Amino acid sequence: MMPSSPIRKLVPYSEAAKRRGVKVHHLNIGQPDIPTPQVALDAVRNIKDKIFEYTHSAGIESYRHKLVAYYKGVDIDVNIDHMLVTVGGSEAIFMAMTVAMDPGDEIIIPEPFYANYNGFATESGVIIKPIFSTIDNDFALPPIDEFEKHITPATKAIMICNPNNPTGYLYSKTELEQLSAIVKKYNLFLFSDEVYREFCYDGHEHFSALNLEGLEKNVVMIDSVSKRYSMCGVRVGTLVSRNEKIIAGAMKIAQARLCSPYIGQVAASAAIDTPKSYFEAVHKEYMARRDTLVEGLNSIEGIYCPTPRGSFYVTVRLPIDNCDKFAQWLLEEFSYNGETVMVAPASGFYASRALGHNEVRIAYVLKREELLAAVKCLEEALKVYPGRVEII
Amino acid sequence: MMPSSPIRKLVPYSEAAKRRGVKVHHLNIGQPDIPTPQVALDAVRNIKDKIFEYTHSAGIESYRHKLVAYYKGVDIDVNIDHMLVTVGGSEAIFMAMTVAMDPGDEIIIPEPFYANYNGFATESGVIIKPIFSTIDNDFALPPIDEFEKHITPATKAIMICNPNNPTGYLYSKTELEQLSAIVKKYNLFLFSDEVYREFCYDGHEHFSALNLEGLEKNVVMIDSVSKRYSMCGVRVGTLVSRNEKIIAGAMKIAQARLCSPYIGQVAASAAIDTPKSYFEAVHKEYMARRDTLVEGLNSIEGIYCPTPRGSFYVTVRLPIDNCDKFAQWLLEEFSYNGETVMVAPASGFYASRALGHNEVRIAYVLKREELLAAVKCLEEALKVYPGRVEII
Repeated sequence: MMPSSPIRKLVPYSEAAKRRGVKVHHLNIGQPDIPTPQVALDAVRNIKDKIFEYTHSAGIESYRHKLVAYYKGVDIDVNIDHMLVTVGGSEAIFMAMTVAMDPGDEIIIPEPFYANYNGFATESGVIIKPIFSTIDNDFALPPIDEFEKHITPATKAIMICNPNNPTGYLYSKTELEQLSAIVKKYNLFLFSDEVYREFCYDGHEHFSALNLEGLEKNVVMIDSVSKRYSMCGVRVGTLVSRNEKIIAGAMKIAQARLCSPYIGQVAASAAIDTPKSYFEAVHKEYMARRDTLVEGLNSIEGIYCPTPRGSFYVTVRLPIDNCDKFAQWLLEEFSYNGETVMVAPASGFYASRALGHNEVRIAYVLKREELLAAVKCLEEALKVYPGRVEII
Repeated sequence: MMPSSPIRKLVPYSEAAKRRGVKVHHLNIGQPDIPTPQVALDAVRNIKDKIFEYTHSAGIESYRHKLVAYYKGVDIDVNIDHMLVTVGGSEAIFMAMTVAMDPGDEIIIPEPFYANYNGFATESGVIIKPIFSTIDNDFALPPIDEFEKHITPATKAIMICNPNNPTGYLYSKTELEQLSAIVKKYNLFLFSDEVYREFCYDGHEHFSALNLEGLEKNVVMIDSVSKRYSMCGVRVGTLVSRNEKIIAGAMKIAQARLCSPYIGQVAASAAIDTPKSYFEAVHKEYMARRDTLVEGLNSIEGIYCPTPRGSFYVTVRLPIDNCDKFAQWLLEEFSYNGETVMVAPASGFYASRALGHNEVRIAYVLKREELLAAVKCLEEALKVYPGRVEII
């Protein structure tokens, strides 16, 4: 049985809010409002083809060469034989699970984690074994002995998302080296979802799992152009691994589905030439948004919000009984100055049922003034929410 | 284990042929040389967005409304709740197998069949039970009692491709009604791959499985814009079913992968306004190509080529020992006037190992003069092929 998406359940309530004339601030989604780079927009508008043909199943060769150069620029040394262009990061996750694992195999993932991992695990028949990361230390990597406790003969892989969705946590090189030791010791695969690579703050740098020494055959990196270039709709990602068996296996899946979207690849290929100034502006904007959000939330009594170093999400603790009820109540019953807020209940990001019930994920993909209005809404909402619970 | 694509194995030999200076006529692929409709090309070039955003997981709503109108025009009465926009027909096949069936369940498919069905069956964990259709009656629907012989308690579905890839066979309404009876009797799903709907010849009309009476909950139709509008690269298809459980299940898969390619949907949506004259010209062109090819092939001693009523493929019988060896030999060793031919060995379209060894699939996606040159090559090749075997 495929799991339902935790956020989609709220969509009808959001529509109901709009029907009762309430403006909804969407803090629940990962769709940035940042424009797609002009070079990518132009490439699509200037497309000269008379036929939109299939591309190579591994991706347009010239695009893969450009990707090699892009990765070199972020200090990742790979060649075109180490990568396949996928249908978004989504397909790369599915491929990793399907190719590296057999149905019934287990994969350890720190929770909370990106809820769609559940869907791909179900499709691949693999079993997610969650391991608890806690807001009490801002969602740092769980202790290595916790990982060891979860390893069974069926364990085939560990998966991380770095920087993290939904917590915003950026794993340090030291944390990754600790993880590396256990991956080596038990000869596991390490799936590293690095689609938020460009979104690191406060001068912290991203360290790719592909740069962990001695893990050449173990690491499968998942990548996507969706967030980097704010073009989620083109559906272009990459699966990167130095393990030739993984690439060969993924290539069979790639051949069955023929190719990744041609026009999206045109946009993605052009986007590699995005000027540095674009990223500087985006970086500055997100850091300002994060600061606005974190400061605003922490000034509200009863809220704890970590200061995340990456991605554009934060998972915060609220003085509430149940995040699903709270999110629904915000949309169905609450308004302040004709406005309300849509948040993603964190329960959907935990595989363990008992966890996350007083947490929500907030995406700071909106302009600062809207974030401020949303924070104000949340503050007022928490004053009157019938299920308010003081955190002891 | 994912199966390898039967055609891709030949790619290195094709490259070798080019290296030895031999021109290769590509009769092996389903990539038409017909231009994409101008309205679709223009829609992409005129795209106004500043951000290429996610679309609805079921597809852009206005596009689904246009699809309803398109289907109405081909006499299929469905509404937007009966369909999901997919990542090509490929994803629709995967969704049908994954949602309607459990791992270990069996699906009966007349062979030869589109080789990529094997890949999606492997991904879904379902087992294909092939049922033999023979060139001796031009690949008509196998007798119904043959289907019954293959039905076990694990049988959950029957799948057809109509018009057929790789045979070009167009199932008649009568054949489909026979099939319908057995689908009803055993309460099976009927997956109908109808991506070649527009390619029917000699005045014959396509009859959709969606119009079989009493099968509202059983039929899952697979569709794609790839062939209809000659835009294989956009990766946009449709899954259509009046069974709400199938749609709900497929929607969960759709939500996990977020959306079908946005720009491809823009092209596909515009393509629905393609003028009738486009299809008339395409139809005329393909019928002329088919006639050129079939007449040319049948004039060669030892070849039998049916006259297919649909798609743009034909599976032909050659006086050869082994189609894989023959296809490789054509690329590695043979040339005539500096030219050779690349064909798709039919063995790859049969699940039963013993079948199809003296058959190849030919796609007539090239201009008539090139088809004539290719036929001449084949004729000369068969005169000197060391593995020639007379068909008794």
